[in-house]
Amino acid sequence: VGSPKLGHTPRLVEDETLERIRRTLGNGIEAADLRDDAALVDVPGGGSLVVSVDSVVAGVHVDLELCSPADIGWKALMGALSDLGAMGARPVGALVALCVPPAGAGGELTLGVMEGVAEASRAAGCPVVGGDVSAGATLVVAVTVLGTVGDGCVVARRGASAGDAILVTGPCGGSAAGLRVLRAGPGRGGRGAAFTREEQGLVAAYLRPQARLDEGEAARLAGAHAMIDVSDGLALDLHRLADASAVGFALDVVPVAEGATEAEALGGGEDYELIVVMAPDAVNGYEARCRAAGLRPPQRIGSVTARTVDRTLSGRPLAQLGWQHRLG
Amino acid sequence: VGSPKLGHTPRLVEDETLERIRRTLGNGIEAADLRDDAALVDVPGGGSLVVSVDSVVAGVHVDLELCSPADIGWKALMGALSDLGAMGARPVGALVALCVPPAGAGGELTLGVMEGVAEASRAAGCPVVGGDVSAGATLVVAVTVLGTVGDGCVVARRGASAGDAILVTGPCGGSAAGLRVLRAGPGRGGRGAAFTREEQGLVAAYLRPQARLDEGEAARLAGAHAMIDVSDGLALDLHRLADASAVGFALDVVPVAEGATEAEALGGGEDYELIVVMAPDAVNGYEARCRAAGLRPPQRIGSVTARTVDRTLSGRPLAQLGWQHRLG
Repeated sequence: VGSPKLGHTPRLVEDETLERIRRTLGNGIEAADLRDDAALVDVPGGGSLVVSVDSVVAGVHVDLELCSPADIGWKALMGALSDLGAMGARPVGALVALCVPPAGAGGELTLGVMEGVAEASRAAGCPVVGGDVSAGATLVVAVTVLGTVGDGCVVARRGASAGDAILVTGPCGGSAAGLRVLRAGPGRGGRGAAFTREEQGLVAAYLRPQARLDEGEAARLAGAHAMIDVSDGLALDLHRLADASAVGFALDVVPVAEGATEAEALGGGEDYELIVVMAPDAVNGYEARCRAAGLRPPQRIGSVTARTVDRTLSGRPLAQLGWQHRLG
Repeated sequence: VGSPKLGHTPRLVEDETLERIRRTLGNGIEAADLRDDAALVDVPGGGSLVVSVDSVVAGVHVDLELCSPADIGWKALMGALSDLGAMGARPVGALVALCVPPAGAGGELTLGVMEGVAEASRAAGCPVVGGDVSAGATLVVAVTVLGTVGDGCVVARRGASAGDAILVTGPCGGSAAGLRVLRAGPGRGGRGAAFTREEQGLVAAYLRPQARLDEGEAARLAGAHAMIDVSDGLALDLHRLADASAVGFALDVVPVAEGATEAEALGGGEDYELIVVMAPDAVNGYEARCRAAGLRPPQRIGSVTARTVDRTLSGRPLAQLGWQHRLG
């Protein structure tokens, strides 16, 4: 499944295996819905935490020839934080489990990754509160994030209902385009050529994505019904939100980042923009909140429909493009 | 460093790299002391959580030829929970990041590991509240655990002071001995021979260790000054506790599990018994709590001394046996 040509980083949580895992865990699972972006844990003595875990694996999600260790650390933490953003939560802390090949510059690789984790930690205001370093054949960065919605309620994937507006916090495909540009290299202008400014922007979108924490919180406070982050491509993630909500959708437009293609926007992934679903009469308030906070204006891209089989772009069926990975 | 002959599973958090990571993270770290077993996170809206992350890597910590996937899942969750026990905390939930080789029976491997995670989850009363599955060259199980001490205070490694009693919740070395027995196989009695009952017990200590959550809570409630779990061998972990507390110790006796050797107890690891340090006049109360809760009686093994250079077993210097792993 998916669009391997785009070569984007799969999230690999294949939905079928996850469903079997859920059954295996049985009543071991209580507060959780492993299919949502994050779960809610009640804390004895008061509040609750939104928790999520996400992994980046070298050779699967990232290519050490294209990404520096610090880029990988940044991507790992921001990718995990994006799941908090999609619930409307703010980060409280992160724990990082690192698995590093013992050979060669293992120590330096460890420190390089943690340097990027530290940069993302400062950028997102999310302290790293725990960690573990192991040796292993492959570089793996598994990040657990803890977040909060204060006295509020998290926004799940499953709250969309017919008639709701679908918005996105920013254009998509920039990350996939950045990977394409990185792979092609800056050589088109001949030896010594540099990336153009547009290419640099795309590369940054791939190497240093931003979790949309402010946007997610603004959407939650504006009364969003459902959210999901664009981690595996706009199409697949929109289908997931629609599946969870048992609804359809009618997209009018694909929000494509400058320099990216529509296919990259629909099937690329790792943009970490948020898909926001809310009642049409809540949209003005959401836009006002974004303006007041100095955030980019959200873009309205379509509407939720009642029939789950109706999932269209400009009136035509929209395939579940995007990354899923088969294990075994 | 360490005692490779015992072949026990290294925790791999080598102290020097961790120190450099701490410096890299700089003020990114707030609530945390990455060298302690777990960190404390304040939860907005009330309460706090004790959090920790721990990984098990096939080929490094475990051998897929000796352990079933379910054994590995069990060991991963119990090993992580042991860090909560060492703080005197009870578990609230766990998140599991799984990295699984895509070839062969990847799906079955995933489900096998999660089966063991589910068994440990039920045994310890710790629901799995989140997860992530990725493909990767090596099997990696990274487990984040969340715990609570209610209104109480966590017990750290650094609270020991001169004159305190040192106790252990049970004998050590059983896990290392179990690995030795597994490797040798049940063949000594000829073809078709089975493990003796004692050997079965050792194998179970290795494959299905128990996090000492009840014992840790009882010690905390009895006023323990410091605790650490025996994950890398009694000697190394006792040295770590003494380092954190800036004290020495005088061991009178090594608590050796039946069928294990003294070297396995001192340098083996993964026993997950707790080393408990408390004022001598608190020991009676701790023992009474253990009796009342139906727990094994703790064993007093020595005393804390003032001079950090004085670290002895039966009056002789005790080396820092145990597992540390060099990366690069």
